[in-house]
Amino acid sequence: MSLQNTQLNDSWTLYQRLREQTPLVQCITNYVAMNMTANVLLAAGASPAMVHCAEESGEFAALASALSINMGTPSPQWAEGMHAAIAGAQAAGVPWVLDPVAHAATGFRRQLVTALLARRPTAIRGNASEIIALAGASGQGRGMDSGDSVESAAEAARQLARAQGCVVLVTGEVDLATDGQRSQRIEGGSALMPQVTAMGCALSALLAGFIGVAPGQTLAAAVAAAQVFAAAGLKAEQHAQGPGSFLPAFLDALHLLQLSDLQRCPVSEQP
Amino acid sequence: MSLQNTQLNDSWTLYQRLREQTPLVQCITNYVAMNMTANVLLAAGASPAMVHCAEESGEFAALASALSINMGTPSPQWAEGMHAAIAGAQAAGVPWVLDPVAHAATGFRRQLVTALLARRPTAIRGNASEIIALAGASGQGRGMDSGDSVESAAEAARQLARAQGCVVLVTGEVDLATDGQRSQRIEGGSALMPQVTAMGCALSALLAGFIGVAPGQTLAAAVAAAQVFAAAGLKAEQHAQGPGSFLPAFLDALHLLQLSDLQRCPVSEQP
Amino acid sequence: MSLQNTQLNDSWTLYQRLREQTPLVQCITNYVAMNMTANVLLAAGASPAMVHCAEESGEFAALASALSINMGTPSPQWAEGMHAAIAGAQAAGVPWVLDPVAHAATGFRRQLVTALLARRPTAIRGNASEIIALAGASGQGRGMDSGDSVESAAEAARQLARAQGCVVLVTGEVDLATDGQRSQRIEGGSALMPQVTAMGCALSALLAGFIGVAPGQTLAAAVAAAQVFAAAGLKAEQHAQGPGSFLPAFLDALHLLQLSDLQRCPVSEQP
Repeated sequence: MSLQNTQLNDSWTLYQRLREQTPLVQCITNYVAMNMTANVLLAAGASPAMVHCAEESGEFAALASALSINMGTPSPQWAEGMHAAIAGAQAAGVPWVLDPVAHAATGFRRQLVTALLARRPTAIRGNASEIIALAGASGQGRGMDSGDSVESAAEAARQLARAQGCVVLVTGEVDLATDGQRSQRIEGGSALMPQVTAMGCALSALLAGFIGVAPGQTLAAAVAAAQVFAAAGLKAEQHAQGPGSFLPAFLDALHLLQLSDLQRCPVSEQP
Repeated sequence: MSLQNTQLNDSWTLYQRLREQTPLVQCITNYVAMNMTANVLLAAGASPAMVHCAEESGEFAALASALSINMGTPSPQWAEGMHAAIAGAQAAGVPWVLDPVAHAATGFRRQLVTALLARRPTAIRGNASEIIALAGASGQGRGMDSGDSVESAAEAARQLARAQGCVVLVTGEVDLATDGQRSQRIEGGSALMPQVTAMGCALSALLAGFIGVAPGQTLAAAVAAAQVFAAAGLKAEQHAQGPGSFLPAFLDALHLLQLSDLQRCPVSEQP
Repeated sequence: MSLQNTQLNDSWTLYQRLREQTPLVQCITNYVAMNMTANVLLAAGASPAMVHCAEESGEFAALASALSINMGTPSPQWAEGMHAAIAGAQAAGVPWVLDPVAHAATGFRRQLVTALLARRPTAIRGNASEIIALAGASGQGRGMDSGDSVESAAEAARQLARAQGCVVLVTGEVDLATDGQRSQRIEGGSALMPQVTAMGCALSALLAGFIGVAPGQTLAAAVAAAQVFAAAGLKAEQHAQGPGSFLPAFLDALHLLQLSDLQRCPVSEQP
């Protein structure tokens, strides 16, 4: 059996498991992404919970299957809530995902991302510019969008994964998942995806959901999350006239996703 | 004339009144639900106003037809704004609705819901697990979703309504409205509704809108809000392929709702 | 060549420039409008960045093409972030737009809008009631919706533009843009637009995007933003059954907008 088929079976198995177990995914995410993220998790079969304030975020994290931290619209108060949530998650053995949105844009974000990285995320999901900058190289991203290609971030992603001891998922025209040793490339998706806000943020939360049902299989979880997203994007594009009709079609596609949809998004080893 | 027809006429009369009077509904709700709640209120014919900070929430409440308080993403600052808004509403004779989202999940939420209940809401809207836990019984909800059936919450809802001197609306596969004496059961809706985030939150705000145009008729307002939601859900399902296409279809259905749509959602006395 | 054709060419030229330059629009906007605003900017061809907290908003503003400030859900903390962002924008020569949502509703808002006006926005976008109240006359708006017609706000808009030395865009059934000397009237749009929340808020952000690519042409930018919105609204209405299906159709229309769509929304000199 080829790698692709093995991986495909892994992704489908994990997706079915996600739907059966409906993992509770605690999200501390940006204001733009909250509604969208909740709808993506629900459509995929997970259960979202947005719980952010430091007074309860750590306590709640112990109840969650996984935690997703996104720094898209940060503030000192929310940063406190993130740290409390991560501490609570780690005390309870709950995995967590970091989405370092535009982490290089301001001094406040650079300090925040450094402090969050020091807490050792289970996985990191970002665009190419964010991952290159996080690995210490010099990326071209000016804000939330990426000026670099995923291919150009492959080495930075590997380095970051090794340095952090985590899985890194870089998303863009193609996606790349790596644990620092093996790297896998996921094709598919739609050119309309970057035209809809918060798609990447929602994928980070879905990644947390997959990790929550796949203990010890973080790389496979990252491939599955990316492949499910790519397959839903590809399917949605067929029903979309533009970014407006793409979003409902994407949520429908997630909800209705079949093995045959996953088969249209090949996974291959990245050299 | 049967109960159903009486109630149906009540609901339709109240809905027409809502559309004519376009009540100004002040919402202090969670970040996930804000956009959705505003769109639901607009589609139904009410006028939304999200005004949350303590510096103005009480002053604004005196201008509103009704106030809706939802504790889905609470923080100490927002809790202050909630208390100020309720105080302003009560001083001006403006009714208010409590949506106790996941109130049993953390110590912070338990304290908050206790303090909010002490201010005596006009009505409470929750899922079965939330209502059972609020009535002091032991529910099974772990977060924002409900692990209990509405039927199993019927007695808890009555107890809570009597203890609080308010109307309780429990929503789920069927809905139940009670003032502690009479209980009414509303059928209809769609299995896609729990797959879309913040539907319950939006219903709480719409309930506030109905109460705002139905002084002294809180139970009838709760039945009307639930019936309108159920009818729009039933209608939307016919045009939906999944949760993504359901939401726009639901807003369209609210906007276009006719008496004949309400007739498809029977109301009956709950023994 | 008539005024209309001149203006049309201006609007189309500016829209093509917006799509080519993808201006980075920093938005500090209300919670209801954030997702919607980001999607409108993306569909139109601009690049959104929601960066609000005082610890970074001023630093980020220097990177932006334009800044949009909307006071729909204000708080003292967010007000600080607005002031810091404006200071940063002005130090870097970045233009900014003020959307004074419901500024007359509470004492807190009245103080905030006074302080923001003192910082001299490049442009102001509001509904008729908001603009009349801002010009010192007595409007009828009670909250986020407008009780006054755009026509009735024409003189107030001119006065406000002159007093502030800025461009004022009043939106409603027809739109009106003025720099205090010339006033232009833009027709088009759809009766469904006020049934969808945050349309005006999103237009303010798009206005900022247009101003960002049209230095020294603020009035032309305001006409272009209004005309693009009106044309997308007119086009979307053809595909919509109600406010729910209108929104995705509107985003699609923005994404696919052609010169022929703009031609359906005439611009004329307002006497």
